[in-house]
Amino acid sequence: MKLLEEKILREGKVLPGNIIKVDGFLNHRVDTKFLDLVADEFRKYFDVSRITAVLTAEASGIPVATICAHNFGVPLIFAKKAKSDNIENGLYKSEVYSYTYKKTVTLILSTEWLGPNDRVLIIDDFMANGNAVHGLVDIVNQSGASLEGIGIVIEKGFQGGGDRFREMEGVKYRALAVIDSIENNKMTFRKFDE
Amino acid sequence: MKLLEEKILREGKVLPGNIIKVDGFLNHRVDTKFLDLVADEFRKYFDVSRITAVLTAEASGIPVATICAHNFGVPLIFAKKAKSDNIENGLYKSEVYSYTYKKTVTLILSTEWLGPNDRVLIIDDFMANGNAVHGLVDIVNQSGASLEGIGIVIEKGFQGGGDRFREMEGVKYRALAVIDSIENNKMTFRKFDE
Repeated sequence: MKLLEEKILREGKVLPGNIIKVDGFLNHRVDTKFLDLVADEFRKYFDVSRITAVLTAEASGIPVATICAHNFGVPLIFAKKAKSDNIENGLYKSEVYSYTYKKTVTLILSTEWLGPNDRVLIIDDFMANGNAVHGLVDIVNQSGASLEGIGIVIEKGFQGGGDRFREMEGVKYRALAVIDSIENNKMTFRKFDE
Repeated sequence: MKLLEEKILREGKVLPGNIIKVDGFLNHRVDTKFLDLVADEFRKYFDVSRITAVLTAEASGIPVATICAHNFGVPLIFAKKAKSDNIENGLYKSEVYSYTYKKTVTLILSTEWLGPNDRVLIIDDFMANGNAVHGLVDIVNQSGASLEGIGIVIEKGFQGGGDRFREMEGVKYRALAVIDSIENNKMTFRKFDE
């Protein structure tokens, strides 16, 4: 998505450790008008008329997933991060290792809100190694719902998470901007046939 | 807001400890179409043409605040919960005691994203004792921005948080449904002159 790549170059920053900071428009201060364009772009790749819900994980995926769900006319569901070991019944659970926080977190979702009749589009703001989205796919599988696709706003291609999904049979995966390398603070985007 | 009260009675549940569960439409599975009506209702009480941003705290306030920001044509800003004691510079910070989790969390917001020229509407899904919103007001004050109002979807009136804001001079506060008591699982809503 050309507009997104331009916005990343204009407003994003590269921090030490190849951290890409886009918190001025995506995940701290959120440009809600731009998210309409992001939702329109996802609409090109996924048949959103088929989906019954958009699924994401708290917290930074929620704004973009909310706008997508809103514009596609379906509910948003967000998996929560368990706050204690004392997790109640009636939940789908998936353990996810977070490299950012160097610990395992458990994603939880009430079994009330997702079931075999659902057709789910997973949306997240960022993909690095892909662990969080693997946890969401795991939860979709537990629920018996069908996975209609996975849409990511920005993928750090050099961390390999996105390619693991591209290689999966029967999974529609799309990232709107894929950063394949960062050298001397300069980002290179992967080219796709649109 | 009559439609909201009806939805709470129809879809909400009262759990032991006077916990009100509305996670089927507000803060786990989110009814994005209904949030349009919530945003329209806030528009009656606040002059949204004046605001420059909608502010909330992660995580459960983000969906409703995102739709409000989107529909009012301004950015959404969400304060994050600090994940470690090792907090970087360039942040507004406010310590908030959470009764739910029985611990103090620090709300943080990058100083880049809020300043003296901003006019802020705070939006949150729930108000109990009001500590989280006090933290957000504290952050608005630190930034030098002006506070245009505080809009809450559901207030647990019997916990007193909302009344503390109603008594504050110069603060516009509005909750769309105020639950004043729960007896034998029956909720009673506060009546307002609309």
